[in-house]
Amino acid sequence: MLEMFNAKSVAVIGASETKGKIGYDLMRSLLNYYKGKIVPVNPKGGTVLGLQAHKSIKDHGPVDLAVIVIPAHLIPATVEECGEIGIKNVVVISAGFKEVDTEGAHLENQLVEICKKYKIKLVGPNCLGVMDTYNDMNASFSSDIAHKGKISFMTQSGAIMAAILDYADKKNIGFSRIVSLGNKAVVNENDCMKDFMEDENTEVITAYLEGIVDGPGFIEACREASRKKPVLVIKSGTTSKGSEAVSSHTGTIAGSDSAYEAAFSQCGIIRVNSLDEMMDYSSALALSPLPKGKRIAIITNAGGPAIMTTDVAIKVGLELAELTTETKEKLNEGLPDTASVKNPVDVLGDATPERYAFTLETVLEDPNVDGVIYMVTPQSVTDPEGIAQVAIEHAKDAEKPILCSFFGGTSFEGAEKLLAEKQIPNYLYPKRAVKSMKTLYNYSIIREQEYPKSPEFDADKNLVRNIIENAQEQGKNTLGLESLDILKAYGIPTVGTAITTSVEETVKAAEEIGYPLVMKIISPQISHKSDVGGIKLNLTTAEEVRAAYHDMMENIPKLEPEADLEGVQLQKMLSGGTEVIIGMIQDPTFGSMLMFGLGGIYVEVLEDVEFAIAPVNESEAKDMIKKIKTHELLEGTRGAKPKDIDSIVDIILRISQMVTDFPEINEFEINPLMVFDEGDGALAVDMRAILKEGESEDMLQTSPRSSLKSTIS
Amino acid sequence: MLEMFNAKSVAVIGASETKGKIGYDLMRSLLNYYKGKIVPVNPKGGTVLGLQAHKSIKDHGPVDLAVIVIPAHLIPATVEECGEIGIKNVVVISAGFKEVDTEGAHLENQLVEICKKYKIKLVGPNCLGVMDTYNDMNASFSSDIAHKGKISFMTQSGAIMAAILDYADKKNIGFSRIVSLGNKAVVNENDCMKDFMEDENTEVITAYLEGIVDGPGFIEACREASRKKPVLVIKSGTTSKGSEAVSSHTGTIAGSDSAYEAAFSQCGIIRVNSLDEMMDYSSALALSPLPKGKRIAIITNAGGPAIMTTDVAIKVGLELAELTTETKEKLNEGLPDTASVKNPVDVLGDATPERYAFTLETVLEDPNVDGVIYMVTPQSVTDPEGIAQVAIEHAKDAEKPILCSFFGGTSFEGAEKLLAEKQIPNYLYPKRAVKSMKTLYNYSIIREQEYPKSPEFDADKNLVRNIIENAQEQGKNTLGLESLDILKAYGIPTVGTAITTSVEETVKAAEEIGYPLVMKIISPQISHKSDVGGIKLNLTTAEEVRAAYHDMMENIPKLEPEADLEGVQLQKMLSGGTEVIIGMIQDPTFGSMLMFGLGGIYVEVLEDVEFAIAPVNESEAKDMIKKIKTHELLEGTRGAKPKDIDSIVDIILRISQMVTDFPEINEFEINPLMVFDEGDGALAVDMRAILKEGESEDMLQTSPRSSLKSTIS
Repeated sequence: MLEMFNAKSVAVIGASETKGKIGYDLMRSLLNYYKGKIVPVNPKGGTVLGLQAHKSIKDHGPVDLAVIVIPAHLIPATVEECGEIGIKNVVVISAGFKEVDTEGAHLENQLVEICKKYKIKLVGPNCLGVMDTYNDMNASFSSDIAHKGKISFMTQSGAIMAAILDYADKKNIGFSRIVSLGNKAVVNENDCMKDFMEDENTEVITAYLEGIVDGPGFIEACREASRKKPVLVIKSGTTSKGSEAVSSHTGTIAGSDSAYEAAFSQCGIIRVNSLDEMMDYSSALALSPLPKGKRIAIITNAGGPAIMTTDVAIKVGLELAELTTETKEKLNEGLPDTASVKNPVDVLGDATPERYAFTLETVLEDPNVDGVIYMVTPQSVTDPEGIAQVAIEHAKDAEKPILCSFFGGTSFEGAEKLLAEKQIPNYLYPKRAVKSMKTLYNYSIIREQEYPKSPEFDADKNLVRNIIENAQEQGKNTLGLESLDILKAYGIPTVGTAITTSVEETVKAAEEIGYPLVMKIISPQISHKSDVGGIKLNLTTAEEVRAAYHDMMENIPKLEPEADLEGVQLQKMLSGGTEVIIGMIQDPTFGSMLMFGLGGIYVEVLEDVEFAIAPVNESEAKDMIKKIKTHELLEGTRGAKPKDIDSIVDIILRISQMVTDFPEINEFEINPLMVFDEGDGALAVDMRAILKEGESEDMLQTSPRSSLKSTIS
Repeated sequence: MLEMFNAKSVAVIGASETKGKIGYDLMRSLLNYYKGKIVPVNPKGGTVLGLQAHKSIKDHGPVDLAVIVIPAHLIPATVEECGEIGIKNVVVISAGFKEVDTEGAHLENQLVEICKKYKIKLVGPNCLGVMDTYNDMNASFSSDIAHKGKISFMTQSGAIMAAILDYADKKNIGFSRIVSLGNKAVVNENDCMKDFMEDENTEVITAYLEGIVDGPGFIEACREASRKKPVLVIKSGTTSKGSEAVSSHTGTIAGSDSAYEAAFSQCGIIRVNSLDEMMDYSSALALSPLPKGKRIAIITNAGGPAIMTTDVAIKVGLELAELTTETKEKLNEGLPDTASVKNPVDVLGDATPERYAFTLETVLEDPNVDGVIYMVTPQSVTDPEGIAQVAIEHAKDAEKPILCSFFGGTSFEGAEKLLAEKQIPNYLYPKRAVKSMKTLYNYSIIREQEYPKSPEFDADKNLVRNIIENAQEQGKNTLGLESLDILKAYGIPTVGTAITTSVEETVKAAEEIGYPLVMKIISPQISHKSDVGGIKLNLTTAEEVRAAYHDMMENIPKLEPEADLEGVQLQKMLSGGTEVIIGMIQDPTFGSMLMFGLGGIYVEVLEDVEFAIAPVNESEAKDMIKKIKTHELLEGTRGAKPKDIDSIVDIILRISQMVTDFPEINEFEINPLMVFDEGDGALAVDMRAILKEGESEDMLQTSPRSSLKSTIS
């Protein structure tokens, strides 16, 4: 909870009598509305806008909130003073901190330290201020306070706060709390998320964010908040591709936005891409009940616009309600012969307010209808205000959402004003009413969302730790096939594999793994193994293994005299099965991000993959599989048997635990994981892990390193 | 050209003195603005709104336009009278025709016949009327005439005309001609398209359509029009799936909208999905010059909104211009230190009109900039009208588009009004300015579009005609593999195939086709050939062919005593190659529609296919291939050799000609066409054609029919 919103006394440090100065605007903003005590502070003393000014905050003593608008270099000392006298809430309006240069960044660090010392909640620096309409407090240099309402808004852009306030004033959209976050030195989006969640006047939480300070904390805060109130977030700066060099498929495909997309969907955020969507949806969420389902009825006085509206409704995933026979009969009785009583219900161009009222009542009573789009176009006899009044009266007590679209211009100005005053959601274009209805429906699902814990598997963490430490000691950052034991430690089935350096060892390994086998030469100098006879397929006896080994060791040196032959890799030959990839990269904001997709062209050409932030729970793991476009190929299509999806889910969950246990793994990929028919399991065939720190080696190089020897079957 | 728009005299047949009657509204509408002669006609005579009424139009004699608002059953006789005295242009407002019942449809047919007889251009029936603002003619029952402007609009929904007029009045958007199309008994969208194209006051053509009367004519009209003026079309009713039963992949995948999507993109239509997009884009197109490229500059007084705008610009496919060093230096000199001179150019929150003017001038001069998004947010010192004035002054002579986004509310009302008055495109949300800029760019490409003719191949049409007639005589509607000769007739390479009924014939055919071969039993009763030994692979000698034949004829009857063995099918075994599908179905609006896609899961699971209306030209055929998501698989990916795309293009063109030559083919599919490496060609392996009329057989049944014998190699 941020106590600053309930402040009963506010000091303005840097208050000014001079018009055009922010210290003047701030005093004006407070004086216009605030009923608490206002304390101007100015080193010159005197009066400011009729109030006695104090030369220093210390001269006055503690207040509930101090708003600071003095030059940046003076601010640390001032905040220190605030701390000394016990002020716990500060807003720093002034700019000149980390957004300008390193000196500013240094100043900002000082601020952070002082706030830690005194447990001060500080908003800013470099912001527009804060508002709480229910406390009549406008502690910002926006001249007007917002209308009272149910939406709270945090924004990392002051200009967007200004623009939204100006727009909302025109449209009569009301707010509860508004925070301009500025540089987020102390108070960040997570604090505001929790505050808005707890604020009893807030029913809809909205945010404009350019970055997130603490990704995991944000996910946690939003999961909690979104079950109580809808959370709408604009995350801007989404198109830039991650600039960091990456060397896995996972890294190549993941844009900088993938992690946001995944995280937002995992924590119940309604992601919006523009301010118009945000205002449209938050108005509907603030003012309407939620629908119980997605079956809408459309009431219209014209056919053409209703067809377009139907198109949009189907496209966004709503359904046109099938009206009951009873409803249709009643409508048939009460409406003119040429009216259409099939949804969309066309009440005809000459519809009166009474006809609209009869139809709206009838349709609202229909158990098949979850919500109503109430459309009006200007026809020669239309009474816009009368028809608006009908919506207003019925929306008051309706348990189903009624979203209006008065689709016209000049002749609808009066009706629009009336609807805005009475707080009935109204959209010029029916499309926007429909999309808002879909958002209401989406939130009705999100609100019921459970976030169960991820399962905990027994894992041989020591083994993994040893492998990682061993590699680090040797200066190796890339672990390949020779480290399949990492997977075994987490109970992930792997294909029988051995790396051996003598003929006897190879034969022994072959007998252990079982036939048929593939043998591959290991040599850092040989990149096209098959060109030099370095791959032997389908070895079925010890004799064949022996012969293949001798053949490689004798003949390859003739073709590649410079190559070091470090040994061979034996692997069980698999038949059948579908290749999938399970990968992970570290996202700077959210940490370990998992990827799932089908192998080969599906990942490389179609980029048909799904991301999720780890740790994932079972339903999230299932979602990753279900959401790829080609999931049908796993479910069995064209007579093919379904694949063992349960095994994939299990392995995703185990990988999720592994990358969470070992954050020193920077990138990870099982490629391919061979998935067999339902009940037959899956086997990891190859893997790569890249560790943090040191120079990253090329992950795409597939020849395994020789130094580690292991046999896994 | 529709002469009615230039009418110098208008008769209102059904003119009335009674308020609330349409005959009254129409007289009012005309009297308010029209400077030509107005002739009221009413069987009672007397005066109407001060003008002498005639008892019949015959009493008065010819006028340039007659608008009719009498009961439907009286209208045919009245139009006949109009024809008799030489009236060539009629608008029928009255409803009661084919939109109500069969009697109405009969009346409408009468109208059509009368109009043919007298060469009358008739708009309607069941419409709102027509307008020409440059002739000051409002021959509609919308009370106000539109503002003069450069947009013309045809609409199949009267309500949408009313709504758009009301909206445009509020936003000061101007029109040249407006037509409410009604039932389109005589004058349809193609006539209006041609008229708008020729009207010198029209610079942007817009249309709301629910259906198209003559698809091929529409394509032709739009190809011509879109090279002269942008054509924006809303086609509503897009979500319903085609209900007709279809039996090919092509038919299954094609929704009812696929043909519209294909046709619109082939004839230069800018398809829009909602009225807000239509108004946004048509305003920009009417008022701005076209950009020479897609590199935009963003000028802003705030960072946050500019980031969001950049996101949208990149997403829709525009580029942020790289400003020249010269520009950056000049901006650095003229702007405050903390301003950002990198695109987006941030002129800071305290920007004055002068600072905006300096920046706009500088940016417009930059050769790297093709267009400017001029963004303003309300900050405490912002002078919205002054900044609007800067845009107005510079837009006047600019050769590059300047689209404004004054993103605020109450405080921007004055600026918005000013921009609307001065006809400067302005959008509340920057997103919409960006999408409008993209549309300007798109049109700059469309305007240069060429529509070369399709190539003409030599084809043995008689052979195809014989095959089709033969089949029809036998009551067969489905042609399968036995009709591969159809492809040969059009020069399409087919895999060596023979259908034979004796062992000697089979051996002879085998020698002709060449080895290796596959042999399959032909029997209508056997659906799983391999279960009964009815498929023999990899036959490499005459002896093997002989043995295989004997084996089948001896052993299959033991397993399937009831089966008629009609013979065998021999086909060359292919290796390598990628499977693609080329299909065609008949669309009720546009005729033959081709489909292209990769075979197997690409078509069945991913539905990754592209459609085009036949006949296609070479560049359209290439586009079909290029536009599928998996086209990379044909171009050579992951070291694979590129496939012979030229062959696919050639075969698409030949199929295009074939289905155009033989419209009696209702569905057609080559599945698969095997495409080999570049230079190695492609071979049709199987095909199905379904003819019109009679009962359609199941196209998915793959056993070839026996009666026709042919050898193709």
